[in-house]
Amino acid sequence: MTIEQKLDFATLDWKEKYLRIIDQRQLPEKLVYFDCYEVSDFVEAIKNLVIRGAPAIGCTAAYGIAIAAKKGDDLIKASRMLQDTRPTAVNLSWAVNRMMNVAKDCDNDPLILEKEAVKIHNEDASMCRRIGEFGAELIKDGDSVLTHCNAGALATGGIGTALGIVYTAFFSGKDISVWVDETRPMLQGARLTAWELGRVKVPHTLICDNVAASLMAKGKVDCVITGADRIAANYDVANKIGTYNLAVLCHHHKIPFYVAAPSSTLDSDCPDGKSVVIEQRPADEVSLIKGQSIAPGGVNVYNPAFDITPSNLIAAVITENGITEP
Amino acid sequence: MTIEQKLDFATLDWKEKYLRIIDQRQLPEKLVYFDCYEVSDFVEAIKNLVIRGAPAIGCTAAYGIAIAAKKGDDLIKASRMLQDTRPTAVNLSWAVNRMMNVAKDCDNDPLILEKEAVKIHNEDASMCRRIGEFGAELIKDGDSVLTHCNAGALATGGIGTALGIVYTAFFSGKDISVWVDETRPMLQGARLTAWELGRVKVPHTLICDNVAASLMAKGKVDCVITGADRIAANYDVANKIGTYNLAVLCHHHKIPFYVAAPSSTLDSDCPDGKSVVIEQRPADEVSLIKGQSIAPGGVNVYNPAFDITPSNLIAAVITENGITEP
Repeated sequence: MTIEQKLDFATLDWKEKYLRIIDQRQLPEKLVYFDCYEVSDFVEAIKNLVIRGAPAIGCTAAYGIAIAAKKGDDLIKASRMLQDTRPTAVNLSWAVNRMMNVAKDCDNDPLILEKEAVKIHNEDASMCRRIGEFGAELIKDGDSVLTHCNAGALATGGIGTALGIVYTAFFSGKDISVWVDETRPMLQGARLTAWELGRVKVPHTLICDNVAASLMAKGKVDCVITGADRIAANYDVANKIGTYNLAVLCHHHKIPFYVAAPSSTLDSDCPDGKSVVIEQRPADEVSLIKGQSIAPGGVNVYNPAFDITPSNLIAAVITENGITEP
Repeated sequence: MTIEQKLDFATLDWKEKYLRIIDQRQLPEKLVYFDCYEVSDFVEAIKNLVIRGAPAIGCTAAYGIAIAAKKGDDLIKASRMLQDTRPTAVNLSWAVNRMMNVAKDCDNDPLILEKEAVKIHNEDASMCRRIGEFGAELIKDGDSVLTHCNAGALATGGIGTALGIVYTAFFSGKDISVWVDETRPMLQGARLTAWELGRVKVPHTLICDNVAASLMAKGKVDCVITGADRIAANYDVANKIGTYNLAVLCHHHKIPFYVAAPSSTLDSDCPDGKSVVIEQRPADEVSLIKGQSIAPGGVNVYNPAFDITPSNLIAAVITENGITEP
């Protein structure tokens, strides 16, 4: 049984006439599927965060082009609609461009495009497995791993990047446990990572982001593994806000801080972390939780989506090509 | 006009026949008062977190004894009821014991006991002013101060400890601004500190706890000031979970980390941080926000209320007696 099979849920499930995806907006309360039959369904799914995670978005967009070809839609128009959903996700435009290049060569042949989308998905799954195998060598029996945000099966076309390592270590028989950072403001740790780990019965404990330092001081964290949204040429890493915080805490407590990501996350055009533009997100993400206000009305909020971890704080970057010590 | 008058709200307002307190459970949505006429009202207020913050709880309990004396209640019974509300708050038992010693000497004279309660309240206010004056010397014109949890007027009988310093610097004409850590899980920063600062128009910006490190890396934090729940003999500090995290981040970024607290918070019987027992709080505080679930049902949660900051990370402890560099 592969790890994918053990995971027992499919973030992306290609049904030939449609793509079935897990509606991540409903997790962890409900496991509900969202079926994409038309390009407009794919656009809605990506735009409205039914699906998130850069690799998963890339696979979804590729299937969107395949469906458009099956329907005889105008592929240029479809590709533009898909590109416009989340302009910052690099995998999205990469996947759409790859599909459109194939479309040019095969004159929009739906079967060839379907094959290419499945190939992109399979490559993503295989990339996750390889990251998992390389990364699992860094995890010892008995280790407690702390992770931030969700870099799991829900974020990719496979077993995940940071969580792919956790799953690989766990299913190889290592006795490991995971500290799940809740990851304010959007709570991807509490909502998604805890859900994934619970479903597969990997021992895990939810904590507020504020708890990491005290756990480290008590010797209860053996390593931190996070994903990455972009890795600069000098190995500075842009990732979910709070990642840099953890890297500093690891440095202080002499705990290794690892980053797991596909090699496509390496951006050789970006010399260092200072060159990464950090997306500012709406105040409501902080001041409202599930529609409930938690702060005075109109309060001034600073809500950057990402932060930059300088390469000197990173013990290793794990890609499908192996382990690099920056 | 004193700073207390400029603050324009009274956490504790003694009306001779009753004590009017702000119901902090309703903040920031509503400014509602809770009037304590009977000892049972005081017990309810402290137990159900209508009022919180160790100094404010101490003052409230003192008034509770004064009311009991006025009503001719059994003072021993009243003192036990008050003591049992929040067993860990050191100021509570200190204030009740002081009142009961006076009661013994004056044969439960209600006027003498009322005077003593007012004196405890005034001493607390004066202690806050002095902390504010000493601490404000550390704040330069143009500084950005980051604070965690609520150590303000809502937590004391005066202008607050950490926020007392902010108010003193601000009202002396310094151009300062405050980064308000939301302070998961109970969100005292988002709910209470942002409310206080907004009411008095001190420039402030709410952030997730995850944002502090990236602000520091950008040079946007000049110092961090927090309160303290207990200070050990070696100056290790127990305070709201996430405080130690900030102290490590300050150390890494060479930013001073200050602790402001009344000298009564110094516990000479406690040799160091390791001797402080950390209260574990219910999982619901993390997995539910305002009754809304944010994590899978039944998820395992680790929710310590406090953490320990070792004295070597603390640039200064500010009490009403002056500034100590541990």
